Amino acid sequence: MSSAFLTDRYELTMLAASLRDGTASRPSVFELFSRRLSGGRRFGVVAGTGRLLTLLRDFRFGEDELRYLRDNDVVDAEAVTYLENYRFTGTIRGYREGELYFPGSPILTVEGTFADAVVLETLALSVLNHDSAVATAASRMSIAAGERPLAEMGSRRAAEQSAVAAARAAYIAGFASTSNLEAGRQWGIPTMGTAAHSWTLLHDSEEDAFRSQIESLGTGTTLLVDTYDIRKGVETAIRVAGTGLGGVRLDSGDLPLVAAAVRQQLDELGATGTKITVTSDLDEYAIAALAASPVDFYGVGTSVVTGSGYPTASMVYKLVARQDSSGGWVAVAKASTDKGSKGGRKAAFRTLDAGVAVAETVSVADGFEQVDTAAEHPDARALQVVLVDGGEIDAAHEGATGTASAREHHLRVREELPVRALALSKSDPAIPTLFVDAD
Amino acid sequence: MSSAFLTDRYELTMLAASLRDGTASRPSVFELFSRRLSGGRRFGVVAGTGRLLTLLRDFRFGEDELRYLRDNDVVDAEAVTYLENYRFTGTIRGYREGELYFPGSPILTVEGTFADAVVLETLALSVLNHDSAVATAASRMSIAAGERPLAEMGSRRAAEQSAVAAARAAYIAGFASTSNLEAGRQWGIPTMGTAAHSWTLLHDSEEDAFRSQIESLGTGTTLLVDTYDIRKGVETAIRVAGTGLGGVRLDSGDLPLVAAAVRQQLDELGATGTKITVTSDLDEYAIAALAASPVDFYGVGTSVVTGSGYPTASMVYKLVARQDSSGGWVAVAKASTDKGSKGGRKAAFRTLDAGVAVAETVSVADGFEQVDTAAEHPDARALQVVLVDGGEIDAAHEGATGTASAREHHLRVREELPVRALALSKSDPAIPTLFVDAD
Repeated sequence: MSSAFLTDRYELTMLAASLRDGTASRPSVFELFSRRLSGGRRFGVVAGTGRLLTLLRDFRFGEDELRYLRDNDVVDAEAVTYLENYRFTGTIRGYREGELYFPGSPILTVEGTFADAVVLETLALSVLNHDSAVATAASRMSIAAGERPLAEMGSRRAAEQSAVAAARAAYIAGFASTSNLEAGRQWGIPTMGTAAHSWTLLHDSEEDAFRSQIESLGTGTTLLVDTYDIRKGVETAIRVAGTGLGGVRLDSGDLPLVAAAVRQQLDELGATGTKITVTSDLDEYAIAALAASPVDFYGVGTSVVTGSGYPTASMVYKLVARQDSSGGWVAVAKASTDKGSKGGRKAAFRTLDAGVAVAETVSVADGFEQVDTAAEHPDARALQVVLVDGGEIDAAHEGATGTASAREHHLRVREELPVRALALSKSDPAIPTLFVDAD
Repeated sequence: MSSAFLTDRYELTMLAASLRDGTASRPSVFELFSRRLSGGRRFGVVAGTGRLLTLLRDFRFGEDELRYLRDNDVVDAEAVTYLENYRFTGTIRGYREGELYFPGSPILTVEGTFADAVVLETLALSVLNHDSAVATAASRMSIAAGERPLAEMGSRRAAEQSAVAAARAAYIAGFASTSNLEAGRQWGIPTMGTAAHSWTLLHDSEEDAFRSQIESLGTGTTLLVDTYDIRKGVETAIRVAGTGLGGVRLDSGDLPLVAAAVRQQLDELGATGTKITVTSDLDEYAIAALAASPVDFYGVGTSVVTGSGYPTASMVYKLVARQDSSGGWVAVAKASTDKGSKGGRKAAFRTLDAGVAVAETVSVADGFEQVDTAAEHPDARALQVVLVDGGEIDAAHEGATGTASAREHHLRVREELPVRALALSKSDPAIPTLFVDAD
């Protein structure tokens, strides 16, 4: 399926006007970045890059798309012809998926003609804003959970395709598994599940329901024990399954109290190895509050797929440099937001001190000069990689492989954060962004 | 593309266990409803129904899906065979799309065998929770905007497919148009657009950019005048386009002040017919605050696609009745949430007094009896229609036709609301939900 119409109309009308006035072919640099971290977050997590690259492969205007544009007079015949042959032939450099970002980090840099690059605005922002918002929330939850595994179970609280993307973003940010089957199939993410209250209610008794689930899934399964009375539910669970029962799930009540009581009851029944999963409206704060409780697994739904209060990152896609009619580069930026929006091509480095991040250093080329290279920042880690080179997409970032390596990268670079970055309260970014002029 | 994997794993493992123990064939009634209105909203708006029906047509387990289930030991061979032939053959009654809902409204009632109905949980919730959250926020904005048209421009702040769904939900709830091309193509929603700051920055001068846009799109177009200095931008716009310019767009600044100054400037320049569009971080409160300002169009982005603070409705999908082994109907509900979750089949009516809604009346059949019919509630409007009849989907609710009629229905039934329902502040639901026993 073509992804070309996941686009705002104005991109195509600007393209058409630029074809008429000749500016369509001006070499241009667009940058995708965020002026701030939503919600007083101390760091952001880049996610969506791998999905964007795959969608970019399908960014072609087919007969259906062209017919709509013609029939609705969206653009003129010249633009229709241009779009018929459109294929992104520019270059995209960007932060690796899973990387951290801060205000002003040049997360993606899209270089090409104006026409090449202008049409990617909405698609790039849709994917990165959503996936990064989820990953940022998920990373905070993963930090709060420590060594205890987190399962993403929020599909029902996200639109059906966002749910798949959210499962992936949460996994990249440290979750262990998802309930979403499509995410399992598409990205190789481990899938999990227990049972719903309807399972117990379907049967003539809770005991019948438990017995059937164990016969089907084995004693290693997790039984939902809070449909009627939790204490009786636990007692029935162990009576039916024996002390080798894999786990019980708690989906209601005051969790610290309930978890402690259930742990004690399980231990008294001899089920000392039976794990406790909790799943009731958890977010990073609730997870942190359960740190001292005898909980083994967290299942997180609504809060992770909706970015825990911040369902979208505030990334924007801006023209930062373009050539003029004589071939000279001009750095550009909207005047009224000068403070946050900085024109010019950029290179980005995470400056480290004894392995701990101390600054996001962004080298800015205002005009003709080249941005800095890694050699000029020996105390720093270069943050950008080439994702698309002259239209050639680097497949290493896509699919299950890309997802796994993004997760690995995230968990590795998170280790560089200073300790204060790990607190959950609202604050300033954990490190400052320093703009330096390229030589 | 199959929609069958937009599903939580546990639905299929419950299905497999029910095939083994014989409960798979138990006639069952699932209900999709919400225990509360998120965010102190005074009413909710049902949206997503038409999309769900279309997705239901594609809810088939193909070779890819079956292979994943086998390879990952998700379910046993018997369940794989069952799923291979799965097609929903039950009946779905529900609120018409665009209808209002309140706590406990039986928004969808899914009847079939347990196996038939259990597997639709995640898909139905994903679609309705997302689309209804957007539509509910959009309806509040549409009320706040009064006669002034609203354009949905938030695609970049929603995952790429949610953006299409959000455009549709906003349109159903009263928005006039969207920037999203796929929503235009798929649902026949009018599309619109102006230009981005990058358009001005691409050119050597603002004047060049304006001139080119007018040459391409005509003087009826809307020029973005705040890239550099708004006063100069407006002056340039009218100089280039003449006093017949269609509109100007303002995307920054203190909007009431800026809109008033721009209106005065336009009038002084003789451009009395030139419209003003504002687009800077609007939500229902900002729209209401601009009621007395000379604004002609609102463009709304982030807040509408993220449900203005409540990105998901809190709808759940619960087993409310099923037959026992002797064929008798049993009403069921989880004990610990008795207050909000009511077992039994239900019929729903909006009770009216002189055309004004006074109650959501829900007739509950606890056991063998039939739910009430419209004849038993002559002072009320029956709220449920048959959407799927023995597996046959009513196509009238799908596609562009279904979308248009949902919008019409919404605008009509919104007129029944008491005046207090139109206030934006947090409060109780505008009308109470009354549960009555079926005779």
